[in-house]
Amino acid sequence: MFKFNKRIALGLLAVMTVVSAVFSPMEQLLVKNAHPTAQVEAAGSNTSATIPAKKAPKYLFLFIGDGMAHVQVQAAQVYKGNNKYGEVKPELINFSKFPVTGVATTHDSTSFAPDSASTATSLSSGTKTHSGVIGLTTDKKTSVETIAEKAKQADMKVGIISSVTLNHATPAAFWANVESRGQYYDIGLQMAQTDFDYFAGGSLGQRTGKEKDKKDLYEILKESGYKVTETRADFEEIKAGDKVYAVSERLQDSGSMPYTIDQVDSDITLADYVKKGIEVLDNEKGFFMMVESGKIDWACHANDAGTVIHEVIGYEEAIAEAIAFYEKHPEDTLILVTGDHETGGLTIGHATMGYDTAFDMIEKQKMSYVDFDTKFEEMKKSNPELKLSTVLAEIEETFGLKVKPDVAEGEEIEDPFVLTKYEYEMLKNAFEESMKPEDNRAETQETGLLYGGYNPISVTLTHILNNKAGIGWTSYAHTGVPVAVYALGATAENYGGYYDNTDIFFKMMDSLKLK
Amino acid sequence: MFKFNKRIALGLLAVMTVVSAVFSPMEQLLVKNAHPTAQVEAAGSNTSATIPAKKAPKYLFLFIGDGMAHVQVQAAQVYKGNNKYGEVKPELINFSKFPVTGVATTHDSTSFAPDSASTATSLSSGTKTHSGVIGLTTDKKTSVETIAEKAKQADMKVGIISSVTLNHATPAAFWANVESRGQYYDIGLQMAQTDFDYFAGGSLGQRTGKEKDKKDLYEILKESGYKVTETRADFEEIKAGDKVYAVSERLQDSGSMPYTIDQVDSDITLADYVKKGIEVLDNEKGFFMMVESGKIDWACHANDAGTVIHEVIGYEEAIAEAIAFYEKHPEDTLILVTGDHETGGLTIGHATMGYDTAFDMIEKQKMSYVDFDTKFEEMKKSNPELKLSTVLAEIEETFGLKVKPDVAEGEEIEDPFVLTKYEYEMLKNAFEESMKPEDNRAETQETGLLYGGYNPISVTLTHILNNKAGIGWTSYAHTGVPVAVYALGATAENYGGYYDNTDIFFKMMDSLKLK
Repeated sequence: MFKFNKRIALGLLAVMTVVSAVFSPMEQLLVKNAHPTAQVEAAGSNTSATIPAKKAPKYLFLFIGDGMAHVQVQAAQVYKGNNKYGEVKPELINFSKFPVTGVATTHDSTSFAPDSASTATSLSSGTKTHSGVIGLTTDKKTSVETIAEKAKQADMKVGIISSVTLNHATPAAFWANVESRGQYYDIGLQMAQTDFDYFAGGSLGQRTGKEKDKKDLYEILKESGYKVTETRADFEEIKAGDKVYAVSERLQDSGSMPYTIDQVDSDITLADYVKKGIEVLDNEKGFFMMVESGKIDWACHANDAGTVIHEVIGYEEAIAEAIAFYEKHPEDTLILVTGDHETGGLTIGHATMGYDTAFDMIEKQKMSYVDFDTKFEEMKKSNPELKLSTVLAEIEETFGLKVKPDVAEGEEIEDPFVLTKYEYEMLKNAFEESMKPEDNRAETQETGLLYGGYNPISVTLTHILNNKAGIGWTSYAHTGVPVAVYALGATAENYGGYYDNTDIFFKMMDSLKLK
Repeated sequence: MFKFNKRIALGLLAVMTVVSAVFSPMEQLLVKNAHPTAQVEAAGSNTSATIPAKKAPKYLFLFIGDGMAHVQVQAAQVYKGNNKYGEVKPELINFSKFPVTGVATTHDSTSFAPDSASTATSLSSGTKTHSGVIGLTTDKKTSVETIAEKAKQADMKVGIISSVTLNHATPAAFWANVESRGQYYDIGLQMAQTDFDYFAGGSLGQRTGKEKDKKDLYEILKESGYKVTETRADFEEIKAGDKVYAVSERLQDSGSMPYTIDQVDSDITLADYVKKGIEVLDNEKGFFMMVESGKIDWACHANDAGTVIHEVIGYEEAIAEAIAFYEKHPEDTLILVTGDHETGGLTIGHATMGYDTAFDMIEKQKMSYVDFDTKFEEMKKSNPELKLSTVLAEIEETFGLKVKPDVAEGEEIEDPFVLTKYEYEMLKNAFEESMKPEDNRAETQETGLLYGGYNPISVTLTHILNNKAGIGWTSYAHTGVPVAVYALGATAENYGGYYDNTDIFFKMMDSLKLK
């Protein structure tokens, strides 16, 4: 069997002249692909990197699709593509056309199914840490320095955009050092001290602390010199060179930006934030911009594929803004797109559908599970004796699904939107659970598997619609499925191959020639 | 939004001098990555390729893991890796260390969840076709020429190895032209006419035809000059230059080689076949060797992760033989590892486990679902009144799973191998179904989802063990999840990026400078 000890090989390489006889050809290739900093670390010295970096980009875009692995992207491609017999073809998302792809493993120190705090820390600083920890090594004490902070020190401008709250784990990992991702207020305080140039997206969680007894973080940000815009009108006024935190005017669950599927024309989109970010940050010394699509993950947790697909398409539009910038500065721009981990155990294939898919059924879905939950809770509030029959019109309007209460087991049904007997029984049970007060619902292994803590009726409806379309889920949590890395532009060639998420940090450091 | 019409761009490129102003920088990159033949096709001419190929390898290994996408590989890496808190780490499979990775889409003309006949045709000949069709274009009439046939015409030697029957879809697609993959006898006849140099692995399906009234295919192969070896002793006697079909001495389901997990010391392994293949094929003009691990797919269909993982590890050992050869001829060897499609909708994460995995539980599994089925059928035969209680010892021996018939709903259980109440109910129901004659079993949507046509007791046992380990499945069929491509050696750099499975053929043609 082929065996190779990377650590020993790297150490050797950094401290001595390479005697090529020491390494087999494949080992030499591996050494060539390893990041220079790893070599330095292995050698225990501060010798400069042995691999000369190509021309450094001035502009680095890092797009992180939270919960996005190969399959979330392919789901959007299948949805946009053609499913006609004889002409089946996916329509590629823009970043699938990037010339370089890599694969990254995402485990953290705690688990193969890791957490966003630890994985974002790996991406931002090259450090593995425990689930839930942001910006600290595995001792939970030692602070790490992030690529964003290092870029700032090198006089680059820095922008951080997220569709979820800005003090949520992924964006926070680019500046914060906290033992628990739940320390939202502390993360907000540390945000005000970053001197980063541009924050945009969702609001801040626990703005006045967990007990609502602290000074408003927006006030603290203003005192630190940030212009905080909370309306579209004010957002439009932001100019190049402003130091700004642009908050979405309309907010959805947990203070995040609305899901793409739920957006209205007046909403500021992730693409708007990227476009404005480029205006604000563009300067002689270049910039680092991290853009998280945080709700791909949230919709995957909830097993709502329609919402996931629209979220990926919204992300594509944001990335199109970076591509347009790259087209103007191809020699100076690097665009990376990756995910921090997979969420939900999404696949494109379900036992009910065999070898078929029917993603066009997803087109019928009109809103996210979140907006449907809100609608359902309103119906329930206005009519505590609500019957399933009363909700059916709403279900058909929102998901396209049709209920024939007298459907028989095994009955041949022509209309694919009509529920089978089995599906109808699932829906009835879920409806009954949803009608109970939340703390009165059954908590068995079976209900855990069926609903995962979500509103039983909406998660059952997305499960039924998804399965009928040929989409399956295995979990309500993150998984150990590796993620893709897509690279375009200056030094993109360094991002091919198979590596760990921590290597993405070292590769970015190498690209930007940062130390 | 970023838009790009590849077809138009390619046509333009081939027929006129490239005016760089016509293409944006990203479009130029895309054109650069497209395969030369596509350019020729788009231009409708026979102009030679516009992209000069690097030094052509003399030896091309194409490893196809049937049903193997990123996650099947990662499952094996997690299994081999370390799951200790604070030190979580996968152990990389040898081909994950290859310097180049690509991603390939796998849809066929019929479906996003394609078939092995059509996908192998795409890999072998660059043609999309309908599910079930081998070596014919979408008109189901026009024969295609395969990379193996073209290599043979160029005086290279050709070897075809598969762990399943040699006239099964994937190996067959390297020579056969048939409207239906079920035409096993015809495929066997065409096999005898190939003049390929080395066939090895499983036996042949329907050796004397569907009606058992035809001449034995082994006889026909012998008449065509093939030495057919059916024992280990005869296999050992095979020498360089022999024209041979080496059949595994011990066969398992459908005449295939035994699963890695079920192998005994005297079995010839896939690694043995690769090693011998190198001996037989090595010559001045080089060789093309296709090696299929066909039962990764079969075990995925059956949702048996333990067997899948062992199968991937067995594949790794076969690939190690090619790597050892590459180490001796690094300038002249190209190794490609890919999958034809994903099977089963496997993921590493299950709702019962949340953010945890316990892959060490899989270590307890002693045999594949196939061998357990055989054992169970024997028990049933010798005792038609068999009770579940009588099978429990066998279940624990084979899967490690323990049954406490008096377990209560929600009971805290310390031993992870003990079934919960919910799992026990599942097992009881499955056992009752398994005790019925096969044609008397329930055929509802629910039993379809639970058992997928497999023996209810064994598929339920693998589901329970897999889920407890943190492994989920969504389907018993193929899925639309993209696959990975791993490349090592001469021209490996051409296999990075995101492309279609048909492009793998064109890239191989380019690597070997074949026309």
